[in-house]
Amino acid sequence: MSDDIPGANGQTIPNGMLQDNYPRNMWWVAAHRDEVTTKPMMRWLLETPVVLYRHEDGTPAALYDRCPHRWAPLSEGHVAGDKIVCPYHGMEFDRSGTCTKAPTQHMKPKTATIPSFAVKEAGAYIWVWMGDQDAIDCDPPEVGYQVDPNWTPVNGYYEVAANWVLIRENVLDLTHIAFLHKNTFKQDDWITAPDTYMDGETVCYEQEFDLAPLSPLFCAGMGLPEDKPIKRVQKGRMPSLAISFSDWNVHDPNPEPGRRSDFIVRGCHIVTPAQRGRTHYFWMAAFDVPELTDEVAEKTRKSVTAAFDEDKHLLEKLQANVEADPRGLDFLEVTLGADGAGIRVRQILNKKLKAEGRAL
Amino acid sequence: MSDDIPGANGQTIPNGMLQDNYPRNMWWVAAHRDEVTTKPMMRWLLETPVVLYRHEDGTPAALYDRCPHRWAPLSEGHVAGDKIVCPYHGMEFDRSGTCTKAPTQHMKPKTATIPSFAVKEAGAYIWVWMGDQDAIDCDPPEVGYQVDPNWTPVNGYYEVAANWVLIRENVLDLTHIAFLHKNTFKQDDWITAPDTYMDGETVCYEQEFDLAPLSPLFCAGMGLPEDKPIKRVQKGRMPSLAISFSDWNVHDPNPEPGRRSDFIVRGCHIVTPAQRGRTHYFWMAAFDVPELTDEVAEKTRKSVTAAFDEDKHLLEKLQANVEADPRGLDFLEVTLGADGAGIRVRQILNKKLKAEGRAL
Amino acid sequence: MSDDIPGANGQTIPNGMLQDNYPRNMWWVAAHRDEVTTKPMMRWLLETPVVLYRHEDGTPAALYDRCPHRWAPLSEGHVAGDKIVCPYHGMEFDRSGTCTKAPTQHMKPKTATIPSFAVKEAGAYIWVWMGDQDAIDCDPPEVGYQVDPNWTPVNGYYEVAANWVLIRENVLDLTHIAFLHKNTFKQDDWITAPDTYMDGETVCYEQEFDLAPLSPLFCAGMGLPEDKPIKRVQKGRMPSLAISFSDWNVHDPNPEPGRRSDFIVRGCHIVTPAQRGRTHYFWMAAFDVPELTDEVAEKTRKSVTAAFDEDKHLLEKLQANVEADPRGLDFLEVTLGADGAGIRVRQILNKKLKAEGRAL
Repeated sequence: MSDDIPGANGQTIPNGMLQDNYPRNMWWVAAHRDEVTTKPMMRWLLETPVVLYRHEDGTPAALYDRCPHRWAPLSEGHVAGDKIVCPYHGMEFDRSGTCTKAPTQHMKPKTATIPSFAVKEAGAYIWVWMGDQDAIDCDPPEVGYQVDPNWTPVNGYYEVAANWVLIRENVLDLTHIAFLHKNTFKQDDWITAPDTYMDGETVCYEQEFDLAPLSPLFCAGMGLPEDKPIKRVQKGRMPSLAISFSDWNVHDPNPEPGRRSDFIVRGCHIVTPAQRGRTHYFWMAAFDVPELTDEVAEKTRKSVTAAFDEDKHLLEKLQANVEADPRGLDFLEVTLGADGAGIRVRQILNKKLKAEGRAL
Repeated sequence: MSDDIPGANGQTIPNGMLQDNYPRNMWWVAAHRDEVTTKPMMRWLLETPVVLYRHEDGTPAALYDRCPHRWAPLSEGHVAGDKIVCPYHGMEFDRSGTCTKAPTQHMKPKTATIPSFAVKEAGAYIWVWMGDQDAIDCDPPEVGYQVDPNWTPVNGYYEVAANWVLIRENVLDLTHIAFLHKNTFKQDDWITAPDTYMDGETVCYEQEFDLAPLSPLFCAGMGLPEDKPIKRVQKGRMPSLAISFSDWNVHDPNPEPGRRSDFIVRGCHIVTPAQRGRTHYFWMAAFDVPELTDEVAEKTRKSVTAAFDEDKHLLEKLQANVEADPRGLDFLEVTLGADGAGIRVRQILNKKLKAEGRAL
Repeated sequence: MSDDIPGANGQTIPNGMLQDNYPRNMWWVAAHRDEVTTKPMMRWLLETPVVLYRHEDGTPAALYDRCPHRWAPLSEGHVAGDKIVCPYHGMEFDRSGTCTKAPTQHMKPKTATIPSFAVKEAGAYIWVWMGDQDAIDCDPPEVGYQVDPNWTPVNGYYEVAANWVLIRENVLDLTHIAFLHKNTFKQDDWITAPDTYMDGETVCYEQEFDLAPLSPLFCAGMGLPEDKPIKRVQKGRMPSLAISFSDWNVHDPNPEPGRRSDFIVRGCHIVTPAQRGRTHYFWMAAFDVPELTDEVAEKTRKSVTAAFDEDKHLLEKLQANVEADPRGLDFLEVTLGADGAGIRVRQILNKKLKAEGRAL
């Protein structure tokens, strides 16, 4: 079909948005820690059905959500002590996936072992390693601030009908704030691209802004009036494809007497592939203040959600159109200067997939 | 993908749950006899669109639901005497599928013959033979009790979003009653596997139980109190992949004066493949008593439905997960002692498909 | 599968109802002219996402609905003057698809050209040429009557879940009126096939009818009583696969004093392929009278809609059954005398596709 469209030639560096473009050997976020309880929950992670639960002592566990007997979902069962019990015929499994009981017979079926996945609780989230369990060579990224009493988080969750890489590219090019979020963020001075660089394996960007009113999304959390000119340094970091941070370093040159002049609000964008074309998106906006009133927290949550709804709407339309378009990826893609960080995402992605013997 | 999951190796004897695993040359149930009237109805049977109807004299008929002219569904038309009339241009067909009238022209189109399927009314159901019409070599299974005035049936229908073989395996291993139906059947003594054997082509199982309260699902129909210890022999029979029976032979060792001491409730489980991954499931619980009050019948219907809802929910989750899982059937499956009857289902299925020149 | 169905052999002349059977090099209708405004709208046309809009001076434009930067749908953006602005990062494009601004940088990305499609406003509709833009060799069909003050149109729109060719075949064999529309059109004398012939590239049919009451759908528009016998000549024309006309030439042999004796109501059936198995269907019933009261127009719209609902319902069932039937097109199709015009549709379709190097 491409011969009837001028210039059609696809992506120079592929992002795999219509494929299984999920590196396996890394930590992804499985859930917010509050979601996982002794009541098992099912979640698609990297196109794998996973049951997440906690033992009665609170330790989290993750198993392939298929009983090895007749493939019933264990997530429909229940936790008993440190075992999960299949809803269908009562078989029990420990956290390693070993069958410890088959009630209808005396003999334990020795071969009835179910795949288990390493999980770690770090910050406010439970992280999972879906790949080779013998290849775990690192901890999840450092996110201690998420549970530091000097910080106060506001957070949310979406299941987005778009590939994770679209969200990654979205949050690493915030020049879209001035356009897509014109009526929500109202931060219309961010229309040139920041400098981007690598700090080891971490993608970074940084940009200073002149005095200007701060986005009303964050004024309440910092106790700043919405029309006061403030200085701002935007710093972004992506230590892993699973998570990135967007720090708004705010300096009030003229604080009210007794008030702080400097604040940080740290945006945190966590994505985890779910099913094909679907992504878990966990977000957090954390203020470096010990607490927010419920009213301020709720106001912040609502206004951030209104802005992120705009991203969700646009990215879902984008994904749906590319999925439904017979041309698919065979369409011109032009890269701008502001795509510096986004392009690095694709480079890291391709490198990681190649290391796993796969390619886009 | 299988190399990252320990022990993945799929089914030893395949059950074809993601495929067209429907033998053609056998009787399947098309409908409950009350469903089929002079108003044509469309039903997917073995992935074939079929129009079911009765002539004005009451005889049932089944045709491929596509007019041979421009493929309009005849099920949107109407019955006139012993003909069915196409809704689109008024062409008429007899029960053999022969066109008897094309209103827009004098000449009958001789080649306009539509496939017809043999139907037989047996018991409470209308049975259909979807395969080679010249290979019909038997009658539907004997189900005269369904219309015997000494029996009183309670019945229902589901369209289940799961392959028929999952329902077949479910009803032939009733050790799941103690787990999946813990809160509905409340028959928690059935936790060991029954003896299974073949009686000719019929899969059978049999098991005796000690004195124990009978499931409240059936107490009302027999007029027994829910806490009275009774003796029970469970006998199962599957004379055909289309239908199986589960007899609860109940003996009250201490009947009230003037009351019967022995009862049977015969579970009947009928499955018919509909579309891929979808099954018509007709069930009947028949008591060997001449009649039930409306109140008792309704109570029984409600409580049996509550239990079968649990099966439907679980099997639909199971099927959906296996369908959506890229691994599909490439996952460890371990067989337990209690799967004796279910394994015979797979053996018969594979033998029948092989006889039709197909294989799983 | 075909060996178990007598006579299965598929279509003699294929109509491509399950495929992309859309000639590119011709004019199709993109929208009713009132639909297209300075607020961009997205429409699937021939399986291509297209954004339709008007510049502030009123001229219509059509672009591929994917920004060449990161593929956001332009239809979510807005029109500024004679440019369309991408919602994501504010890039602007003129009607030729040339990028005229990329706000985040000084340099315009020269390669960022988006495919544009020729559009023409003709009659009440906006027409689009989706194929080779250098091969435009004609104007859209003549439809001046649609905006002639001596004619009064009643019109409507459906998105039909069926391939466009089914609608084409439907409206070119109106013998179905006597059957499918028995209770709406109530024109039960049209049960023999008209003469069909070619006038150049235009498929035509013509048929005279004896005195009979006119369909109540059109009596109100002509001011005729529903039970009055009138003469009628039916003339059909299909100048293009995109559009056909069905003229009801009505002669009242005994008009009321001072009343006209002759009227025309011109049915107009416009189809445009949308996505696979989905079609935009624009219809118009225009009376050769200078105006209709709102009451008469509304009554006509309602009664025509009730009739066309019957077509939509039947054709959607037909399409859905053929799509879901594993046999698909591999089923007997018998052609009747009344299919003369419909067969010519298939011949023209196959010829046009062949000219584009494609085939069914």
